[in-house]
Amino acid sequence: MPDSAPTSAPSPAPHNGERHLALRRVAIDTWHENVAYLHRDCEVYRAEGFQALSKVEVRANGRRILATLNVVDDASIVACQQLGLSEDAFRQLGVEPGHLVAISQAERPESMSALFRKIAGERLGRDEFLSIVRDIASLRYSKIELTAFVVACNRSELDREEVYFLTEAMVATGRRLDWKEPLVVDKHCIGGIPGNRTSMLVVPIVAAHGLLCPKTSSRAITSPAGTADTMEVLARVELPFDQLAGIVREHRGCLAWGGTADLSPADDVLISVERPLSIDSPGQMVASILSKKIAAGSTHLVLDMPIGPTAKVRSMPEAQRLRRLFEYVAHRMHLSLDVVITDGRQPIGSGIGPVLEARDVMRVLQNDPDAPNDLRQKALRLAGRMIEADPDVRGGDGFAIARDILDSGRALVRMNALIAAQGMQGERAFDHQHPALGALVVEVCASNSGVVSSIDNYQIARIARLAGAPKVKAAGVELLRKLGEPVRAGEPLYRIYADYPSDLEFARQASARASGYLIGTSGDVPQVFVEF
Amino acid sequence: MPDSAPTSAPSPAPHNGERHLALRRVAIDTWHENVAYLHRDCEVYRAEGFQALSKVEVRANGRRILATLNVVDDASIVACQQLGLSEDAFRQLGVEPGHLVAISQAERPESMSALFRKIAGERLGRDEFLSIVRDIASLRYSKIELTAFVVACNRSELDREEVYFLTEAMVATGRRLDWKEPLVVDKHCIGGIPGNRTSMLVVPIVAAHGLLCPKTSSRAITSPAGTADTMEVLARVELPFDQLAGIVREHRGCLAWGGTADLSPADDVLISVERPLSIDSPGQMVASILSKKIAAGSTHLVLDMPIGPTAKVRSMPEAQRLRRLFEYVAHRMHLSLDVVITDGRQPIGSGIGPVLEARDVMRVLQNDPDAPNDLRQKALRLAGRMIEADPDVRGGDGFAIARDILDSGRALVRMNALIAAQGMQGERAFDHQHPALGALVVEVCASNSGVVSSIDNYQIARIARLAGAPKVKAAGVELLRKLGEPVRAGEPLYRIYADYPSDLEFARQASARASGYLIGTSGDVPQVFVEF
Repeated sequence: MPDSAPTSAPSPAPHNGERHLALRRVAIDTWHENVAYLHRDCEVYRAEGFQALSKVEVRANGRRILATLNVVDDASIVACQQLGLSEDAFRQLGVEPGHLVAISQAERPESMSALFRKIAGERLGRDEFLSIVRDIASLRYSKIELTAFVVACNRSELDREEVYFLTEAMVATGRRLDWKEPLVVDKHCIGGIPGNRTSMLVVPIVAAHGLLCPKTSSRAITSPAGTADTMEVLARVELPFDQLAGIVREHRGCLAWGGTADLSPADDVLISVERPLSIDSPGQMVASILSKKIAAGSTHLVLDMPIGPTAKVRSMPEAQRLRRLFEYVAHRMHLSLDVVITDGRQPIGSGIGPVLEARDVMRVLQNDPDAPNDLRQKALRLAGRMIEADPDVRGGDGFAIARDILDSGRALVRMNALIAAQGMQGERAFDHQHPALGALVVEVCASNSGVVSSIDNYQIARIARLAGAPKVKAAGVELLRKLGEPVRAGEPLYRIYADYPSDLEFARQASARASGYLIGTSGDVPQVFVEF
Repeated sequence: MPDSAPTSAPSPAPHNGERHLALRRVAIDTWHENVAYLHRDCEVYRAEGFQALSKVEVRANGRRILATLNVVDDASIVACQQLGLSEDAFRQLGVEPGHLVAISQAERPESMSALFRKIAGERLGRDEFLSIVRDIASLRYSKIELTAFVVACNRSELDREEVYFLTEAMVATGRRLDWKEPLVVDKHCIGGIPGNRTSMLVVPIVAAHGLLCPKTSSRAITSPAGTADTMEVLARVELPFDQLAGIVREHRGCLAWGGTADLSPADDVLISVERPLSIDSPGQMVASILSKKIAAGSTHLVLDMPIGPTAKVRSMPEAQRLRRLFEYVAHRMHLSLDVVITDGRQPIGSGIGPVLEARDVMRVLQNDPDAPNDLRQKALRLAGRMIEADPDVRGGDGFAIARDILDSGRALVRMNALIAAQGMQGERAFDHQHPALGALVVEVCASNSGVVSSIDNYQIARIARLAGAPKVKAAGVELLRKLGEPVRAGEPLYRIYADYPSDLEFARQASARASGYLIGTSGDVPQVFVEF
């Protein structure tokens, strides 16, 4: 029962050559979505026929991209013989304005049937995950399709074997670094705790010990500062890969990153829909974190997993379940993993926002008496666990080694070497005694007296973000009271710094709706359940 | 343990008045998504700070809309003191260009916590469905949030009580018509069968019998023609509601609709993400169909449920399960429902596309010997079941009454009256003997001899759509062979009609990849399992 091969009748022969339009760059930044602009009266293609379909394929010079089509009625934006592309799409296609381009309806991505099976609740195999992840990595999925995949994989919908397949596919569809050394250590936090800038302490300590630690730092996505945003206060962070690799070889570490987009590229795409939905299911978190680290060439990873009422993980049984899943997949992927459960009841340190966090970090490195002790202790603990990856270090000795490196000033020396190698930011070194903070300030005060019994990580992060962090380096929140500390009515709880009046106003309004603090009695302070 | 009410320190007081921009209409049609355009160097707002968040709220004159923000670097599109809005967004805000507007970060929709609970697999109550549907109906959900809701409700995730809550919420958040009559009949097909234009026969028959039948017809979304698209070949279909209600009162029916968007508005929004994912889960289908019909004021509904290998429902047990769910929800909503299971193995009639389908319909009404018998028989069966809603008609008599109305020409008279009342399309009546079909034609032929053993509803619909239907009325597919008919190699199976060379070429390429026909033996033709 063969499929009949249709033959065309000779009468009015279809035009066979490709129809072309001239490419135009449209200066609109569509935020991670390719958009093509076609004039409604385009003479070559009927704009309306295309628009009903979800995506078009744009081809030029042997290259092709997918884009969402917008129909334009203003020839000054795009003329009838032109095809406009938004900034991202233009960059991705990579040909000059005026170049001839052709468009057609986009074929559905190959993996669509596997996606539909996952939506229907079926278990997928290795090849199906590979096919889906390949389409995602090459931006062939629409936001709708991406969201469907993410939601269908949410909850307990992925068994641990599937999480392994997903992780493996995410590594396989991107670049993978090889540092040509047997031991490459890294640390990572599952996130959610503002001010948790331990990487900028751990890397100089561990590198000073001699372990290779090419920290794959990133910019903030939904938080008020990522390691890259904060390090940028001190040094250049966007370096060509070759320069970066040279710094890693010479100094055993770095705090810069230019090329994470090539490592597990599907991860960045999936994150763009997971974040707005606050989806952070165990399977997706494990695949996201481990794929990036494995692609970056790490052999040993210390994972910081904070627990607390407003942290990502809210109970010890949940933490143990998540730890086992991380360990299973890491083992299958031949990554040595050490999960450290930490105190996630409140932000770490006192500053939230790039400059404020850089001040906290430099105070710790300088052994300044004003240095936040919680940040110092946590960094030492994590650095100690990383140092224990060294076969010459006895289990239990890491913490003391790390403390010695920090107290002796060797960590500060190494940090200054990294700053010099990456390129100092500005003319003069960062003055951690007098950093340039946002010129506009609001203090948020306690309305009653008592003891700080709760600090909402999420709300504090949100206020810092509204104030302008991380784009405005000097913006953010400085915490003046931490958990368990007494406060009197009218005394300040924290300060909001901003550079722009509209930012300050948005942050102030948010803090007026919910300050993020609760004032109660010392009995109300939640207990901490962490491993030591 | 009260939440502390923060107080602002007096020092640099935030600017308190609203910051304003001048509204500009940007002639870009963003296809059902509101987009706001802000210049990167806007003096009032920092574009980049906003862009990191997903949506902004635009306010003017007491009205407010939500929009996705695009950042612009070209002052000829939007200048530094302006805020641009895409066509849809501009219309929705409803103020004049140049009017002062203010923007702020959009607050998350109220129902977000209920959405997150559904994503996490929990069962939701009546109030939670109402809150989600209210936010969806007022366009407060992003595409990502909508997709998450749809996928989370997919499969057996909704129990039948939840389907009832969803249906009820969809009715409650829109307009509801009241025809002030005890009996208002309607029919609906669950979809998926090209050429299935029975409404244009059923309405004149049932209205001629005297029952009130204000058919809520719609335009095609993913199919090559909806009832409104096909009726538009004959008459005007977009009428102000008052005129339409007058026609219904005078002629007992109509085949036009201007106002379906107000009826269950959440349905249209949900469909915009369900269609690209081919999601048509039982719960969503039931809520979608029943909410529209109940909002349109129907008291009795005959539901056409086709079964076939390429229909939406592919087996009798599946059809029975779906029927029970429809009946449960209809009963809770006090709608009298009659489900009719029909033959969905292939398209109905010979024409697919507005003009071709209008020809089939008019041939049946004219009792033309070339009229497709499958369309005639199916329309009579459905009309008969509707007529049996009349308490004066004995069960089993409906078919004969319908046949009599059709054979006697009374249905044609009623159709002509409806055409005249709605306003004839063009100067002269539609000539069903010589309709104006697409000027460009391709015939698709059989590659081997045998019997037509399968026609793929989906592929035929896709080819008709690529040829330009429904936007190009004269475009589409004319089937020359139906299931079980013999064909010799080289003989044509169907003709593709188009008006534009690029459309014809896209349709031809799709049919070359898969014609949609299988030629086998008479034993290969699937059997039909339908109720009579």
